[in-house]
Amino acid sequence: MQPFRKLALGSLLLALGAASAAANADALRDQANGIFKPIPEKPSDTLNPDQVTLGRQLFFEPRLSASHVISCNTCHNIGTGGADNVPTSSGHEWQKGARNSPTVFNAVFNVAQFWDGRAKDLEEQAKGPVQNPVEMHNTPKNVELTLQSMPEYVAAFGKAFPKDPQPVSFDNMARAIQAFESTLITPDSRFDLYLKGDDKAMNEQEKKGLQTFMSAGCIACHNGVNLGGQAYFPFGLVKKPDDKILPSGDKGRFEVTKTENDEYVFRAAPLRNVALTAPYFHSGQVWNLDEAVKIMGNAQLGKQLNDEEVGDIVAFLKTVTGKQPTVEYPLLPPSTATTPKPVD
Amino acid sequence: MQPFRKLALGSLLLALGAASAAANADALRDQANGIFKPIPEKPSDTLNPDQVTLGRQLFFEPRLSASHVISCNTCHNIGTGGADNVPTSSGHEWQKGARNSPTVFNAVFNVAQFWDGRAKDLEEQAKGPVQNPVEMHNTPKNVELTLQSMPEYVAAFGKAFPKDPQPVSFDNMARAIQAFESTLITPDSRFDLYLKGDDKAMNEQEKKGLQTFMSAGCIACHNGVNLGGQAYFPFGLVKKPDDKILPSGDKGRFEVTKTENDEYVFRAAPLRNVALTAPYFHSGQVWNLDEAVKIMGNAQLGKQLNDEEVGDIVAFLKTVTGKQPTVEYPLLPPSTATTPKPVD
Repeated sequence: MQPFRKLALGSLLLALGAASAAANADALRDQANGIFKPIPEKPSDTLNPDQVTLGRQLFFEPRLSASHVISCNTCHNIGTGGADNVPTSSGHEWQKGARNSPTVFNAVFNVAQFWDGRAKDLEEQAKGPVQNPVEMHNTPKNVELTLQSMPEYVAAFGKAFPKDPQPVSFDNMARAIQAFESTLITPDSRFDLYLKGDDKAMNEQEKKGLQTFMSAGCIACHNGVNLGGQAYFPFGLVKKPDDKILPSGDKGRFEVTKTENDEYVFRAAPLRNVALTAPYFHSGQVWNLDEAVKIMGNAQLGKQLNDEEVGDIVAFLKTVTGKQPTVEYPLLPPSTATTPKPVD
Repeated sequence: MQPFRKLALGSLLLALGAASAAANADALRDQANGIFKPIPEKPSDTLNPDQVTLGRQLFFEPRLSASHVISCNTCHNIGTGGADNVPTSSGHEWQKGARNSPTVFNAVFNVAQFWDGRAKDLEEQAKGPVQNPVEMHNTPKNVELTLQSMPEYVAAFGKAFPKDPQPVSFDNMARAIQAFESTLITPDSRFDLYLKGDDKAMNEQEKKGLQTFMSAGCIACHNGVNLGGQAYFPFGLVKKPDDKILPSGDKGRFEVTKTENDEYVFRAAPLRNVALTAPYFHSGQVWNLDEAVKIMGNAQLGKQLNDEEVGDIVAFLKTVTGKQPTVEYPLLPPSTATTPKPVD
């Protein structure tokens, strides 16, 4: 064999090897693209900009709460992953919420809102905490009186809902908040860049973690654009976690449907930005992502994931942190003589 | 007299009249400029931009509180005039603060901080609420452990305080917050534009209100760049307001100096943006600016201001609302395994 041919053969073998590795890499990406979807680069262009602007004010508006202290941002803090990073939130008079506050980021892509999916969309969701006695402790009537008392809000609602004969309403408050929250998306995570073809966006361990995340069965619940948030599953499908993590008093979706099958059923947690949103689970009792992954392997899949598998999956999960939204703090109108006063 | 001369005389008289009105207008402005000063157009250029950036994060950082719920912005809300617009703030476990939360806007121009001036500057002030058991309920040690647990904060402190061998410290936290808060100024109020020569920036009633504000004696305490905030005076100098407005249990600056002369002495409230910062007084018991002006006339000057005078003064006070600061909500670093957990 002549040197030229030897070289050519060597090159061919190298090329074949590279092609095979590339094929494997493409296979992993193809598989992933069949299961997940990147976050869109930009919010939906069907959003009404005037509603978004008004919604931004309302999201930061503490006067939606009876105390004038608590706003949406209190528990869905846009500086800390869209959540408040405590087990359960402190609401009116420091009462504790029943479940961990879910992130508002990318929530627009969930099939329904709240841990039990009891609100069909962000509009319906927004009305919940405002009225919840342990959260903002307010009433629709008082919210409307509050917003109607400020000429700047009257003008902003009129602009955002020009066809509505009564633009300043509790319903429109929720619609505007939904519009703003629909802009709170986190595109361009390293995982998304990888899905779109950038091989270098994830390292080998992270890709191995992705592989394990798929092959171990996590994707049965955690799939789609939000790696979850699309459907309901019993927590403790195979083995119930202990009472601290899955308190027996909270029967999840059963409270909504009153159907026995829905006992301890929850919406699969969306995992976007999960590295930013500890503590974990509806009970908010687990601070460590490694531990959360282990618990899920055990509870949902009946698998004792080993340390390497857990480490790989966590490495992968850290690649789904996207570009956090930038938001200018809104200027809120001053109260007037007719604005209802805060209550203690 | 020929028509030409007649015309000339008429013009002369008119011109004299205008000159006299202009002289009066200039006299009012000259007098005002001797007493007040406009807010600077821009924050001091001696501020360190890295400290400002870090301070912005810390100002919105709920993990400076033991509960991980309360940040500086909770009580000094930059969307609502730099204050929280409730009588007294709700702190840790919903405990009530002793006095109304003063605005952070233009606070850099006050002679000292807090209603009793017990902190000499914003740096010293920033350390107070963090440690106050009824406010953020934290300790310097725990704050340092918290900040040191996050690599992004370690890097940001290192950048902001490059010469400090131990950059992540409680003291430097306060310095960075001071730097950020020093940018929270509100220039270009209509009153400031008037002071600088724009006659049209204030209408006749507002100018009349300015005249009354000066001639009635309000300026004895409310002068300088912040229309107050420069010195200490007894509340109820002539006649004590009732116990609701001036609760006998709060002896003001006496608590600081233990000097009998300082009983019920407070720092004169700075009146910048006063239309945005109801309720009024250290007790936060008066919601209406008209009523506040009446009470002050009576308590401090022994004067029963009539409705016209009150209306004029309030019209003037509404011209001291400046351009509110625009602030991008900061991205805060995620907690780590070593970050101290929130306490209930």
